[in-house]
Amino acid sequence: MQTYNVAVVGTGAVGQTMLQVLAERDFPVGRLRVLATSRSAGKAAAFRGEEYVIEETTAASFKGIDIALFAGGEASKLFGRAAVESGAVVIDNSNNFRMDPQVPLVVPEVNPGDVRWHQGLIANPNCSTIQMVVVLKPIYDAAGIRRIVAATYQAVSGAGQEAIDELRQQSRQVLNGEEVTGKVFPWPVAFNCLPHIDVFLENGYSKEEMKMVNETRKIMGDEQIQVTATTVRVPVFNSHSEAVNVETREKLTAAAARELLRQAAGVVVVDDLEARAYPLAIQADGRDEVFVGRIREDFSIEKGLNMWVVADNLRKGAATNAVQIAELLVQENLI
Amino acid sequence: MQTYNVAVVGTGAVGQTMLQVLAERDFPVGRLRVLATSRSAGKAAAFRGEEYVIEETTAASFKGIDIALFAGGEASKLFGRAAVESGAVVIDNSNNFRMDPQVPLVVPEVNPGDVRWHQGLIANPNCSTIQMVVVLKPIYDAAGIRRIVAATYQAVSGAGQEAIDELRQQSRQVLNGEEVTGKVFPWPVAFNCLPHIDVFLENGYSKEEMKMVNETRKIMGDEQIQVTATTVRVPVFNSHSEAVNVETREKLTAAAARELLRQAAGVVVVDDLEARAYPLAIQADGRDEVFVGRIREDFSIEKGLNMWVVADNLRKGAATNAVQIAELLVQENLI
Repeated sequence: MQTYNVAVVGTGAVGQTMLQVLAERDFPVGRLRVLATSRSAGKAAAFRGEEYVIEETTAASFKGIDIALFAGGEASKLFGRAAVESGAVVIDNSNNFRMDPQVPLVVPEVNPGDVRWHQGLIANPNCSTIQMVVVLKPIYDAAGIRRIVAATYQAVSGAGQEAIDELRQQSRQVLNGEEVTGKVFPWPVAFNCLPHIDVFLENGYSKEEMKMVNETRKIMGDEQIQVTATTVRVPVFNSHSEAVNVETREKLTAAAARELLRQAAGVVVVDDLEARAYPLAIQADGRDEVFVGRIREDFSIEKGLNMWVVADNLRKGAATNAVQIAELLVQENLI
Repeated sequence: MQTYNVAVVGTGAVGQTMLQVLAERDFPVGRLRVLATSRSAGKAAAFRGEEYVIEETTAASFKGIDIALFAGGEASKLFGRAAVESGAVVIDNSNNFRMDPQVPLVVPEVNPGDVRWHQGLIANPNCSTIQMVVVLKPIYDAAGIRRIVAATYQAVSGAGQEAIDELRQQSRQVLNGEEVTGKVFPWPVAFNCLPHIDVFLENGYSKEEMKMVNETRKIMGDEQIQVTATTVRVPVFNSHSEAVNVETREKLTAAAARELLRQAAGVVVVDDLEARAYPLAIQADGRDEVFVGRIREDFSIEKGLNMWVVADNLRKGAATNAVQIAELLVQENLI
């Protein structure tokens, strides 16, 4: 069997999940390099039960590498082009290249064909966008989409391992009646909701909110889709939840939408009100699918639906989607 | 000074807050009776530093009472009419009479005039509706409202003292790696989000969601306002947050909306992105005002706004609003 030399750049929450997902999905990894900043270099990372020494990333790190998975942050800005010049295909989970017209932005269930025009670099979308478009795609294909109003309930793991530790620490402090301390979030996140993810922009939206607007259009390949979003950090360790309101072009009943979603790749419908079954962050944790429930017609407009969409943001929202892109490249002989 | 004999019916989280707010706002209480079910009878309740023995509610409990504040649950169904027949004006925080066309549903900042046609019973709206309409009223008056899409982030205190205890207990269990137990919520609420408040109805919405639809129209006195909502329980002890998307009839800039809200009674604008200032549940806790921020134009439609609305659900969402209604009755000589 053909194997591929893989580099994983980044050893935080997403980088570690990438290694785990590569192993779980039996990706045909030949040689593996685990790269990070000098801060982590020399430490160990585990892959398939073996220890790998983490190396400091340099422009020369990608020699002989076929696929480089960048977990996030500044790394792809510094080394992404060098990796491509070394002959690797870069799959980048950061925000650095997502809206670059030369760079495909891919969710395999939605726009797999976009991998075909890659020029060495493929971007992995934002976590909150990925789970939304996976669910919206079958609805779009059946009935068109005019407008989306999204409100998110995002887990702290999206802000990295330090954020997970901060929620744990702050929660203990509150329960013990102690003063709350923190440094990752601008305000205490324990037992609180912060309508603030990533930085704020001139137009009054956060960058996270604008990612949902712009990335959705690019992935769906339809600049006519109108999107507005409020993105909110909630005291959940892992898995994002979203209240998604969608106005379709053609009428779609809740029953028809539910049936479409039951057939959709990568989607699990959890929607049985009598059994109190609806998607939950704590149940999506560790899973690769996107969960959808509370599917109901929006009676405030002629053609509308409300849904509740939940997925593991470190997996489908980041690592799993990136590995699925790598799988696509292999399947389509694009590497 | 004229005083009024007051009965507070219910000694849970809302009942206790009612006693506290009556004292804080110096409501001219003459005689006070604290009533509850037989389970609490004989225990003590505090009011202005004095202890009151809790009495079991009966139809005869309201003799000589001028104002009866019902905290919630079944009590008003059982004894509300009897209280009115005894000559009391009932202000009822439960859902039992809110949509009764004979019963005014009042938020003093929004529709104070509706107290005038009361026939002995006045309903206090649902907590998530109250904070939303306080903020929407000045926008409605200036620009009209066509449609509202709301997603809520509701604190556990809305489900009573037992729910507060359950969140505390479950949070400790998760942090200690123990199995999570609970009985108030159908699923663990610690570090999780539950898109399920009150019971589910035939149409796929929860009762809480339909309260936001129906009560908003009744309070605003406009059956044309379209409302859709997703109501979600989050692991916050107290104070509800809401992402409110509103489509107006006339164009309103974010700056104009902010200015209107700055002038509005009972509203505090917290909206300075550079200073990372936006409303937070932990800051609204213990306050009587409704806090609004993240005010921005919704670019997905011609005339739209997004906002983040936070208030203490036990106070403005319940006890404070009820006491304000009592104050209105006194001011307008309706008692």
